[in-house]
Order: sequence, then C-alpha cells, then structure tokens
Amino acid sequence: MRQIYLDNAATTKVDEEVLKAMLPYFTEKFGNPSSQHQIGQEAKNALEKSRKIIANAINAKTHEIIFTSGGTESNNLALKGLFFASYPEKNHIITTKIEHDCILNTCKWLQSMGAQITYLDVDKEGFVSLEDVKKAITQKTIVISIIHANNEIGTIQDLEAIGKICKEKNVLFHTDACQSFTKVPIDVKRQNLDLVTLNSHKIHGPKGVGALYIRKGIEITPLLHGGQHERGLRSGTENISGIVGFAKAAEIANERNVIKMKEQRDRIINELLKIPGVKLNGAREKRLCNNVNISFENVEGEVVGGYLENDGILTSAGSACMSHSGGISHVLKAIGLSDEKAGNSIRACISRLQQTRKLIIFLKDSEKL
Amino acid sequence: MRQIYLDNAATTKVDEEVLKAMLPYFTEKFGNPSSQHQIGQEAKNALEKSRKIIANAINAKTHEIIFTSGGTESNNLALKGLFFASYPEKNHIITTKIEHDCILNTCKWLQSMGAQITYLDVDKEGFVSLEDVKKAITQKTIVISIIHANNEIGTIQDLEAIGKICKEKNVLFHTDACQSFTKVPIDVKRQNLDLVTLNSHKIHGPKGVGALYIRKGIEITPLLHGGQHERGLRSGTENISGIVGFAKAAEIANERNVIKMKEQRDRIINELLKIPGVKLNGAREKRLCNNVNISFENVEGEVVGGYLENDGILTSAGSACMSHSGGISHVLKAIGLSDEKAGNSIRACISRLQQTRKLIIFLKDSEKL
Repeated sequence: MRQIYLDNAATTKVDEEVLKAMLPYFTEKFGNPSSQHQIGQEAKNALEKSRKIIANAINAKTHEIIFTSGGTESNNLALKGLFFASYPEKNHIITTKIEHDCILNTCKWLQSMGAQITYLDVDKEGFVSLEDVKKAITQKTIVISIIHANNEIGTIQDLEAIGKICKEKNVLFHTDACQSFTKVPIDVKRQNLDLVTLNSHKIHGPKGVGALYIRKGIEITPLLHGGQHERGLRSGTENISGIVGFAKAAEIANERNVIKMKEQRDRIINELLKIPGVKLNGAREKRLCNNVNISFENVEGEVVGGYLENDGILTSAGSACMSHSGGISHVLKAIGLSDEKAGNSIRACISRLQQTRKLIIFLKDSEKL
Repeated sequence: MRQIYLDNAATTKVDEEVLKAMLPYFTEKFGNPSSQHQIGQEAKNALEKSRKIIANAINAKTHEIIFTSGGTESNNLALKGLFFASYPEKNHIITTKIEHDCILNTCKWLQSMGAQITYLDVDKEGFVSLEDVKKAITQKTIVISIIHANNEIGTIQDLEAIGKICKEKNVLFHTDACQSFTKVPIDVKRQNLDLVTLNSHKIHGPKGVGALYIRKGIEITPLLHGGQHERGLRSGTENISGIVGFAKAAEIANERNVIKMKEQRDRIINELLKIPGVKLNGAREKRLCNNVNISFENVEGEVVGGYLENDGILTSAGSACMSHSGGISHVLKAIGLSDEKAGNSIRACISRLQQTRKLIIFLKDSEKL
C-alpha cells in the first residue's frame, strides 16, 4: 500500500537532490576541514560555501553562522551559552509555555543552576501578548526566547514586533526557527534577531545537522569545548556531508512550494472541518503552511491515528519528542484545551514532496472518519 | 597524481560498504524513531540494532550505549555530566597532559565552575605512571579520564591496570577511545571502564556521529536537554543514517586489518629511521597500529609536509584540531621534546583501506628526503 506520510513536523524525507550533493563528501572529498593539505582544504571550502548559503537565507553575515548537530543542540547552546556568559550579573530568561521540550527542559535545568525563568502564557490561538513580553523584562533579563512557528499547532509569532521590544529594552532575542525555516521569512536584521536556531531534517535535509545564528559581538559560552572549531564556539570535527546537505536543502526550498503547501493545507482543513465535532487547533491565518492540528469530539487522537495508519496515512498524536514522556501536550493545554480534548487531537503535516490528492479523496469520503 | 592519504588520525574515508548501509535511511526509511507509526518504528529498529552492534564491540550492555554527535560531544558529556551530577560533594578530576583538546578545554572550563583538575605527567614514551594515578586520588575525586591511544603519538595506555586502581579506590574511570576503537581491544568489564568515548569518523564511518558508553547505574547530568531521547541522557532527533553507518563501520573492522596495518606501520618506521637524525615519537611496541610520528633534526614538520604533498603524500604537522590554535603540540612537549623538536615533527597515519607500497618505494629512495 502506498503511504501518505503526514508527519513532516517530526522529520522529512531527504530530497534526492540533497543526497546527491552530499554523496561526494563521504568517499571522495572526505577530508577534515582542519587539515592543512588539499583534501582538508577541499572540505573547508565546502564548509564555508555552505555557511554562506545558510547565512544568506536569513540575511545574516557568513561568520555569524555556527553549525551544530541539530535544533536541540542549537537551542541548548543558545540558552546555556548566554546564561553561563551572563551569570551571576544577569540570570533571567523569558520564554513561553509553548516552546519545544529542548527549550523547556534546558530552562528547567538552568533553574537548578541559578536561573530565573518566566514562562509567558499564550492566547487560545497560541499567540504571546506583546504587553506580557514587555512587562516580563527586568534588569536581570538576559534573553527572550520565543518559538517562531510552533511545532504542534503551527502558530507563527510576530517576530518583528517582539524584536522591536527587545531592541528598545536592550535584551537579547532568540527564536527557535526549526519549523519555520524556509517556510516563513526570517530576516535577522528586520526582525532584530540576536540568535536563531535552524535545523536540517525538517527541510528535507539530513538528520544530525543544525545551525545557530549568533549576532556578531554577542558573548556566549560554548557547550562543546575542544579543538576550537566554529570560531571556538562549537568544537568537534564538522559533519561536512551533513552540512553540505543542509545547505542544499535550504538553497532549493522556495516560495512556490510554500504557496502550494498552503493551498493543500487549506483544502485539508476545510474538508476536516466538515466532520461534526472537529475543531482546528492553532491560528487559522498566521499558521505554518504545512501544519494541520485538529481535535475530535469523542475519540482519542491515537485511535484516529491507528485507524488512518490502516489506510496508509501516517499522522501523529502529538509531537514526536513527546513520545518519550507519554504525557498530554503542554502546547494544547496552554491554548486552553482540557486534558481530554488534548488527548483527542492529531497533527498532520504535509511536505513539498508530496501529493495530497489521495488524502483529499479519502477525507471527502467522510463516512470513513 | 594519485594521492597517498596519511592523515587517518584526523579523519578517514567512509567505506563504500558503510555508505551502502546508510543510503536507505536518507530517502526511504527516513522516519523519526520517536514516531509511533511504521516509518518511525522502522527507524527505531535500525537505531536499536546499531546500538547492539556498538555495545557488543566493547562488551557492554545495549542500553549502556548513548549516541552523540561525535567524540568531542561524548568527552564533554562524560566530564561535564559527571561533574554536574557530583558537585559540590565531589569536584576533583584526574586526567593527563596528553589528552585531546576536547578533554583539556572541558577541564579548563570546569575549573571556572569549581572543579579541581590534576594533570598527570607522562614518561618520554607517553605512558602515565600507575603510582602517579594512585597518588592523585583524593576523597573528592569524581573520575579519572585517560586517553586510550594517543591521537598524536599513538601510545596505548594500560587500561586494565588503571581500571584496577579505580575499582580499588572507588573512583569512576573514563577513557577517550576515539583513536583506539576497533584497533585495540576494549572490554569494559575486563578493563573496569565506567565511561568510554567512541567515534565514527576515525573508523571509516561518517562524521557527526559518536557514542558514550555509560555503565548502568552511573549518575550523569545531560549536556543536551530536550525530548528525553537516549534514555533522557542525550536529547535530539537521532541521526539514524549516521548511526547505521557508524555501526556498520564497527561491524566490518577486524583483527586482520589491524595486523596488516601493524606490518605496514613497522616497514614505514624502519625506513624512516634509516634517515639520519630521524627519531620516533611515542612508544615502539604499545603503539596504535596505524600511527607514525617522527621528528627531524633540522627541518620543520610543515616544510617536510609541504614537500611530501608535492609528491601526493598527505601528512600532518600536528593534530588537525590543533590547527585552530596554531601552537606547539602539547603532547610532544609532555614527552619531553623542545619547542623546536616538536615543531620538527610530522604525523603519518595509515588506514586499512590503503596500499602503502608506493610510499615504501618513495621512502627507500631516501635522497628525496
């Protein structure tokens, strides 16, 4: 049976073109960029070319991009790195109740190290209030970390407005852009972003690669100490094939795909909302182009997911990372859903690599659901 | 011109068989192991199968292996993780003067966090003294971290003897086995190892993958907080293709290759020692099967390296990671070389994938050097 993979917020298929770009860096151009000889310098060139592509994609300068092992490491580096560079003079971090676990659990650990954390509420669509952001800032505030587009409900925050507040109040601004990168415009200058977390495997690049944009001049303590790679901010031999793949994935993503995904998303949402009792979670307009998240009246998300999987349709009852804790989604609770309603939800995320015609036909045959 | 790559301590070419094993995990079996559906579970199965292979290779239990982004992360996790789990009750770490920069710079940072570090001397071949190890242990000692086989001079420490001391004195024992894995036997039970750092890209696996063996029951604070992957000890979506490649590389490495490399190494060393003024750095017998490191009387290593590169022979004047600091090798200084002698050194590391016949012929034509 041909499967329809609708779990693209968890991870995506590597694009064939991306894989093709990566291949020479395994067996031919396999050098260590720190080696002075020709094979090493060939790898170094690929590294710097990739850095430039990622930098351009968010209007940053090339040397402001640090490659990491992925979104989780970038988020950990951003918050821990700023905390250790600022403590004890400053110790306050502002974030939201709808961040990814790698922000929330990093904050939790930093609390045990002396940090004070403010977790901002969100409204029923998942937006933070600009007033709340302003009010939370104190003399001790190091950074405000707010997810760009939420990984569960797809709500897109107004980075430019938040960035303006950060600039006025002279606090740093970090955003986790793992889900939004290549799907929602990111411009570090216009949005006044000081740090941005980016990720490869959500954009049809390989797993195990990410980046952190760090605005020039910002002091940050490394998370990985060692051979002083990445301007001393992230040691460890660079994963060249992965980095090349990440850059290629960023390079080939384009606005046409985003428009196409938006149309597909809206057709899916419209069909789903015809089913009695179905409600959309998250914002209707300022929403990730590939995200659908709905709640049913009286049936558990896992049951619906299992039923859909029998028809070859792969969805998710929550975020993939949540599967380890097995709990109720903290994001759905933060937008006001009861435990029961949160449990009655499923997430379906499309990608630019797929046709959704079969899915629409399936949904039109609504008796099936 | 056909090149002879002799920088295999910096990084290795990915074996074709390894790449073949990895390929399906980019575009077909691309799931996130945390996803509950079939594509996710397929990835999960590959992850656990790989974990078993790595565990078996060092006589560990499967759940004692944690995958990371590489040797640097594993070494950082080992030392920082133990420190944060032990401090302030205990704060003392014992290591050596010939560790990789990722141990030394991690220790340096931990000092700023309240750690006390003892850096053990080594003798002129690079061995630590068992007496020194014993004497350094205090009531506050958390862990003894000693590199198994040195990355510059190839000297192999007697893990079993050190492990015995650690067991008697009830302190943890960590070894950085990035260079020795698959080349020197590692048996966590026999050698009483509590933590072991392993790395993929030194054994013809891909870059960006490593592992940390953590003996069951040891308390360690995660370095990367997040979605509770890897038993909560290392969050972040697992780099499945990389992990599968790492496991394949470990699986196909074998004793025959080690014997072959030893023979090649000895032929190279014997030819080199015929050149007037050339001295071998490191131990003659207890030495990595692929490592050659020599000093010249009156000529800089970089000059020799440049000259050899003109003939297609790629060596290294120091460790690749050292290239960022640009300094004199701390390892060569620790075994008693003067700054000048240390600067007059080159490292040449062979691999199981290459023929060295052309090199031997080149060396026999000794007038060239």
